[in-house]
Amino acid sequence: MKSLLKSNYILYFLLILTSWASAQGLKSPNGNFEMAFELLKDGTPTYQLEYKGKELIKTSKLGFALKDNTKSLLDGFTVVDSKTATFNETWVPVWGEVAEIRNHYNELAVTLEQKETERIMTIRFRLFDDGLGFRYEFPQQKNLVYFVIKEERTEFAMTGDHTAFWIPGDYDTQEYDYTESRLTEIRGLFDSAVTPNASQQQFSKTGVQTSLMMKTENGVYINLHEAALVNYACMHLNLDDENLVFTSWLTPDAVGDKGQMQAPRHTPWRTIIASDDARDILASKMSYNLNEPNKIEDSSWIHPVKYIGIWWEMITGSGSWAYTNDFPSVQLGKTDYTSATPNGNHSANTKHVKDYIDFASENDFDAVLVEGWNVGWEDWFGHHKDDVFDFLTPYPDFDVEVLRDYAKEKNIKLVMHHETSGAVRNYERHMDKAYGFMAENGYDAVKSGYVGDILPKGQNHYNQWAVNHYQYALEKAAEYKIMVNAHEAVRPTGLARTWPNLIGNESARGTEYQAFGGSKPNHVTVLPFTRLIGGPMDYTPGIFEMDVSKLNPNNKSHVNSTLANQLALYVTLYSPLQMAADVIENYKRFPDAFQFIKDVPVDWQESHYLEAEPGKFITVARQDKQSNDWFVGNVNGTSERTTSLKLDFLEKGKKYRATIYSDGPDAHFKTNPQSYKIQSKTVTSKSKLKLTSAPGGGFAISITEL
Amino acid sequence: MKSLLKSNYILYFLLILTSWASAQGLKSPNGNFEMAFELLKDGTPTYQLEYKGKELIKTSKLGFALKDNTKSLLDGFTVVDSKTATFNETWVPVWGEVAEIRNHYNELAVTLEQKETERIMTIRFRLFDDGLGFRYEFPQQKNLVYFVIKEERTEFAMTGDHTAFWIPGDYDTQEYDYTESRLTEIRGLFDSAVTPNASQQQFSKTGVQTSLMMKTENGVYINLHEAALVNYACMHLNLDDENLVFTSWLTPDAVGDKGQMQAPRHTPWRTIIASDDARDILASKMSYNLNEPNKIEDSSWIHPVKYIGIWWEMITGSGSWAYTNDFPSVQLGKTDYTSATPNGNHSANTKHVKDYIDFASENDFDAVLVEGWNVGWEDWFGHHKDDVFDFLTPYPDFDVEVLRDYAKEKNIKLVMHHETSGAVRNYERHMDKAYGFMAENGYDAVKSGYVGDILPKGQNHYNQWAVNHYQYALEKAAEYKIMVNAHEAVRPTGLARTWPNLIGNESARGTEYQAFGGSKPNHVTVLPFTRLIGGPMDYTPGIFEMDVSKLNPNNKSHVNSTLANQLALYVTLYSPLQMAADVIENYKRFPDAFQFIKDVPVDWQESHYLEAEPGKFITVARQDKQSNDWFVGNVNGTSERTTSLKLDFLEKGKKYRATIYSDGPDAHFKTNPQSYKIQSKTVTSKSKLKLTSAPGGGFAISITEL
Repeated sequence: MKSLLKSNYILYFLLILTSWASAQGLKSPNGNFEMAFELLKDGTPTYQLEYKGKELIKTSKLGFALKDNTKSLLDGFTVVDSKTATFNETWVPVWGEVAEIRNHYNELAVTLEQKETERIMTIRFRLFDDGLGFRYEFPQQKNLVYFVIKEERTEFAMTGDHTAFWIPGDYDTQEYDYTESRLTEIRGLFDSAVTPNASQQQFSKTGVQTSLMMKTENGVYINLHEAALVNYACMHLNLDDENLVFTSWLTPDAVGDKGQMQAPRHTPWRTIIASDDARDILASKMSYNLNEPNKIEDSSWIHPVKYIGIWWEMITGSGSWAYTNDFPSVQLGKTDYTSATPNGNHSANTKHVKDYIDFASENDFDAVLVEGWNVGWEDWFGHHKDDVFDFLTPYPDFDVEVLRDYAKEKNIKLVMHHETSGAVRNYERHMDKAYGFMAENGYDAVKSGYVGDILPKGQNHYNQWAVNHYQYALEKAAEYKIMVNAHEAVRPTGLARTWPNLIGNESARGTEYQAFGGSKPNHVTVLPFTRLIGGPMDYTPGIFEMDVSKLNPNNKSHVNSTLANQLALYVTLYSPLQMAADVIENYKRFPDAFQFIKDVPVDWQESHYLEAEPGKFITVARQDKQSNDWFVGNVNGTSERTTSLKLDFLEKGKKYRATIYSDGPDAHFKTNPQSYKIQSKTVTSKSKLKLTSAPGGGFAISITEL
Repeated sequence: MKSLLKSNYILYFLLILTSWASAQGLKSPNGNFEMAFELLKDGTPTYQLEYKGKELIKTSKLGFALKDNTKSLLDGFTVVDSKTATFNETWVPVWGEVAEIRNHYNELAVTLEQKETERIMTIRFRLFDDGLGFRYEFPQQKNLVYFVIKEERTEFAMTGDHTAFWIPGDYDTQEYDYTESRLTEIRGLFDSAVTPNASQQQFSKTGVQTSLMMKTENGVYINLHEAALVNYACMHLNLDDENLVFTSWLTPDAVGDKGQMQAPRHTPWRTIIASDDARDILASKMSYNLNEPNKIEDSSWIHPVKYIGIWWEMITGSGSWAYTNDFPSVQLGKTDYTSATPNGNHSANTKHVKDYIDFASENDFDAVLVEGWNVGWEDWFGHHKDDVFDFLTPYPDFDVEVLRDYAKEKNIKLVMHHETSGAVRNYERHMDKAYGFMAENGYDAVKSGYVGDILPKGQNHYNQWAVNHYQYALEKAAEYKIMVNAHEAVRPTGLARTWPNLIGNESARGTEYQAFGGSKPNHVTVLPFTRLIGGPMDYTPGIFEMDVSKLNPNNKSHVNSTLANQLALYVTLYSPLQMAADVIENYKRFPDAFQFIKDVPVDWQESHYLEAEPGKFITVARQDKQSNDWFVGNVNGTSERTTSLKLDFLEKGKKYRATIYSDGPDAHFKTNPQSYKIQSKTVTSKSKLKLTSAPGGGFAISITEL
């Protein structure tokens, strides 16, 4: 009996060991999340996530299909090592919604060996109080050196037919309105969600982009995204809408390959942020926490920027980027601009820029963006033109030196503009000279653009090749102490922690679309849940004249927002780079409303998300980093709504003056957008305000210590 | 009757006018060639060429198929203008086979309008005494601005089933042995002509590359090529082997498009060099004459180069480019080479380079090429690796400064090596720093390489994108006063007239293949008729040890050439850049034969092709530019052959010493390659020499004034 018992005991012990080996657990610091890692019988690695005791992500597979006949990294694994760790630190971002960020997680790193091939792969899980991040790592090893990914097969198995806020999966653009629907409805709504764009390529009728925002029937909010996208292809999600399982879908190169890999290497982090409180999604810092610390030793040259610009007039069609209509096309270095007839509509001329410098100076802005300053705009778009811009030669009516000196005199920076038209080789060839030109002429920030297909043809905006280019441009900019605001580039994934000179991206449907036919009036109540996870957006708000035909009679577009909503955006759509995007004439018409824009800062000490529901409303309060002032913003969806605003974030015992900019009683984003009212009140931390926002409306409040 | 006659007269006159309008003629200066341009009834432009009264090229169509639904530029044309001109000048090349080149042609420029689209296209024909060149021109115009070529449809309609010396049409390599066959036999022989290569892509079983050499049954030699390939895709030829018509086949981009065009623009020249004397083909300067004059204002830094190098040992496998075997792969900037174990076989080490510098200095060479000096060679090939080299960081055992100073002391230049592994974006990113590094360290010439697929994947070696890259590298090199020898790049098309710093290309099957299994013994009797039309080749001759296993016991390859043939190559394979490619130990074994290589110059005053037959023999005599010495070279095909050599090119009344290096009586490229004899004779312009060359043999003669 004794021996039998003993062998049972040994057996039992071995079983425990084995199950320990193939199944692993992890909890978040506060215990709300529980993750389980497990190998299936055939050696397929899986993970599963629970939130507050309920399943959030069903058992989901992990791995990679490799190109050609290379045995894939999908199954046949055993666990050969397993390490846990805890990490808890606070770090200080160069700019942000908050002055300090806490990075606290429990980590599990499982090392797998695929017996048949003797290849090693580690999956590292980090469980935070706001959710899960995990990535794959390929250590240096003999049997896995160079390999090509055919597809990454990371699953996110949903527990139900959640509501999702999605845009079509696309290799070239994110500039779509968000569609709110059940997961099972995506397929039927897909085609109508695909609106025209300068460069676009969808891949599946159930393909969507990240970050993807969802809400379960039980009121749990789930956000799927990636963090630290470096030297890898951007990840989309493809939905199996029968089983409600998302699988990663990487952006391919010109021949359909999805990743060139050389061990040692790791992938970006795949992130699942979740909470039963929508505000936690907005407040999550997981993207940043999963990125490497700041690589720029001396970041003192990096600073938030509040700017105006010569831009909206061209976007609406009332002004022109191009200088002349004389030529059917231009050839840089050959076309003689000095003898060309000006079209009389070229906005980026010396006088006009000086007007904007004056206005910026008088109104405490930092900078003026000027688009259309450089030769080549006559045929900049739609021709797959390689040598389209040289980033150095101004038009005859844009005096670089005069404006350099004038801006300096007025203590204003000019923001450089590098539209590339997708000709990235051309940009890289000119980049050192272009950045050097900036440094010599007092520009410390550049807005770059990638409008149109990426060249050479066959490439796209989001594959590994393109991601590598954006990174190259960003790191080289840092060498020149230049800040970058990259439009049409890949959406951010928390990289600004490592490279804080990345002060902005567009990579979503911005204000320009209000001049291209309009965006959904609740668009800005979705963006922070989707696009802003991973990094700020240069949304360029602040449009005061919603009827675009007033600027350009031929453009009947309408800005689907009230004026108060436009003010609120400076608070609700966090960005270290904020534009007052309208033409200055319109600000001169509403100086009382414009005062808010003048007052609102762009760098914050603290941020409190007071209430939030994707697609419906967001209210947030933020404290200025440079003073004790607070600012509150509310943006509203399509139905009128009243906010009961408690000011309990204010310091107890202090008195403040609150200036409240809100929708007029009859305001409406379409029929009466410019109806607003301004009230002034003395408030304390005990105060409550009842504010009604119109459809597509909102309110903005500046609160200063008395 | 009178009125009837009058109207007939008018009708006749009108007919003449009309036929003048739609049919045009052109003659060469000496009248041997006659070209006719004509529009077919449907407005398709055609040309036809006669030589000495007989049809050489049958009526052949011209035009372009355009992408998508754009009406093509193939038919529906009328002639709206026609201009003739004559040009006759002599110009001086910076280096060459001759000191002066005559450019004499009659020109016809026909301007066509396509009525339906109102688009204008000009075809410019230049008829020389050695043949025809023509190109398409698209003037600046309203209705043709940006367009994409789907295919160029230039025909070359053959009059019969000519014998051709061809290599398979391929978007990535020219490194094939030539096949000699009838045109109708190409299809059946195609597959066996495709030998393995690091990067290759064929497109048609009857596709061939240019320049294409042919011989008609009547003994007329015809060469088809292109000149001035700039900002356009490389042209191949696709044979309709039923009708014996070649049509141009351009190299596509990653999505299958063949040309991005923006008017005003012109295409490269399509060239037909022809003669009943094969020597005229070799002597033709048409490629250069069709290129733009020298764009480099001060060319004084450009000079021919005679060099040795650390190269053959790696090619044969006896030495190594790589430094260490410690790592499965390397990552530039991360891999620590200083602590790695040297593999003991790294050829580019300081001591070895010094030995080569010494030898070069003692033997009147100009330079030493060193391959494998820089980090990254451990995994340089076959991985589509992007960041493969940085062109700046030497291995631990290659001391840049020591060698810079040592070479300078010995009055020797080091030749830089930039292998790119096809990662052209990586090369362009590093290019300024790499060229600057060269300038700082005394290097004035670079051998560049493009081994493996061009990145990003989907690109190839010969399309417009790649051609643009080679041009970029060449022009930037000129800014740094650097000469370029580009291997695996597109084959030259006379560009060295415009950019004389392009002193070499490989772009064909060079000496390295003798270590990769061997080339056909008559290979070098074909190359001057094919590859060398358009520019010199860095063939790297001078191998004295034909049994490669003597260097590397594991390599059983055999150099299919006699030693005398190797000497002759310095005369028969013209190049301003000539390597004595063997390891110096082998030259030390045959100092008497090596003397010829020491004596032979690399820049010429005059060149006389004495006899030539493609695939069979070439004998040429050249006079040194710097002295009155003459050099003669003969290379022989597969059958033993005796040359009756008349020295009537020598100056009358003078006496010379001729040192004759020829095959021994029993020499044979395979069985007895190292059998040679050296004779010394006094000769005059009246002398005749009878010299017998072995199979794969030849002779070399240096003739100095007494």
